[in-house]
Parts: sequence; C-alpha cells; structure tokens
Amino acid sequence: MRHIILTGHSRISEGIATAIEFVLGNKIPYFNAYMEGEELYSKKLREKISEYPPQDDIIILTDILGGSVNNDMMKFLDRPNLHLVCGMNLPLAVHLILSEEENTEQLIRQGIQAAKDGIQYCNDIQVSANMDDLGDF
Amino acid sequence: MRHIILTGHSRISEGIATAIEFVLGNKIPYFNAYMEGEELYSKKLREKISEYPPQDDIIILTDILGGSVNNDMMKFLDRPNLHLVCGMNLPLAVHLILSEEENTEQLIRQGIQAAKDGIQYCNDIQVSANMDDLGDF
Repeated sequence: MRHIILTGHSRISEGIATAIEFVLGNKIPYFNAYMEGEELYSKKLREKISEYPPQDDIIILTDILGGSVNNDMMKFLDRPNLHLVCGMNLPLAVHLILSEEENTEQLIRQGIQAAKDGIQYCNDIQVSANMDDLGDF
Repeated sequence: MRHIILTGHSRISEGIATAIEFVLGNKIPYFNAYMEGEELYSKKLREKISEYPPQDDIIILTDILGGSVNNDMMKFLDRPNLHLVCGMNLPLAVHLILSEEENTEQLIRQGIQAAKDGIQYCNDIQVSANMDDLGDF
C-alpha cells in the first residue's frame, strides 16, 4: 500500500488537506508543526508511520527545503520505503492521488514535474489566449 | 506599492498564510473559497482589491490551474497591474516577500523559478549528501 502524509509549519498542511478533500474528496493525514499547546508534531507523525507495515510506501510532503520541518523529516528517511518531497502544492498532491502509476519513485518524479508545470504566470496564458482569438480574424 | 493576496479551495490559502506568518512574520491577506455559510469569497476579494490604488501592483496566488478559483481570478485580470500565479507553494511566497526586485513582473518570474526549484525529492538529496560524505574519505 501507499500512504501520503502532509506536514509543514503552522497550519499549511491542514490547509492543503482541506483543499484536497474539497477538490478530490480524499482525506489525507496532516501534522501541523509547532502549534502552541500541542504535542510535538514529529512524535505524532512517527506514531502514525509506525502503524503502517514496513513494506508500505509512505510519501511525506513538506512545505520548504531548509525549513525545520523538512529538516526534521530528513531524519525519517532511514525508514525503508519512505519518500520525502518538499515544496508541496496542490498540483503535486492531486497528481500523487490520481495517478495510476504503480512504481512509487516514478509516481513521485512525475508528480514533481506536474507540480512544477502547475506553477504558472496566468497573465501569460491570458495574453496567449487573446492572441489565439486574434488568429481567428 | 505591491500587495500579495492568497486564495484557493477551502482553507489552503489560510494554511499557507499561517506558515508565512510563522516563518517570516508577515501577515498576508487570504480568501478561503467555497466555505459553507460564508459570503462569496470572490466578492470579498474584489472589495479588498478596490481598497488599493490602481497603480499598485497586486499579486494573487491561487492553488491550481483549471480549478474554479483560478478560473474566477482570471476574470480579475482586466484590473491594471494585477498579476495571477497558480500552483502556489511556500517557496513562491517566501521569494515574493523577501526579494528586493523592484520590477514586479521580474519578481514573479524569479519567484516562479524559485517555487519550481523548491520542489525536490529529498531522497535524492540524502543520497547526494551521503556521496559527498564518502568523498571526504
């Protein structure tokens, strides 16, 4: 089996999880980091991971490379079949959830490309669309 | 002046705003879309934009190209100096906030590159780091 987990500073992972649920209907586990008055997120995350059999693939998505959350997660990479991707956005999550790719490493590499392709300056798209319109005349 | 606004499905923009505030201390306005029992987000967003003088640059970040929120925002592009970027992630926001680039279009293009560069498969980094370690021996 394959599992996706979101984590990041404050409530970014919760926010992305709500958008995933709104758009796709999937409930993805998330771990808000450094929330006042709450138990250490990395402890809760480790407990969650321990629920999965070692042969299961786990993909952890975090918010930013070099940030303390991603640094914490780098320490989890000694777990077999654990994959860590930073810089998460909604196109990445959508790809990881919807793709039928069975090879998890391939899935992740394709998902990262989809995530990058999904970041666009929409003013360029509008200009391009307008030029297409002009082409009809 | 230059303003950044976040919007997206459910609470994704709120989540990213909390991470920005945690990491950088900046409070960025956000508009949660399609929240039950709440006023139409695009109406509130339009009111927010109307507070800014027309010569001010506004950068709207959304969650996903082709999603209904980004489609709604495409209609805002008739406002002069309004820039729309989809596929937002934390590296994008951090770049847009911290960069000293004065030209907004340049800032956005650099920010998009930073956002893409910020999406990484960290297992590759770990392998690379281990190989660097070996290089010392």
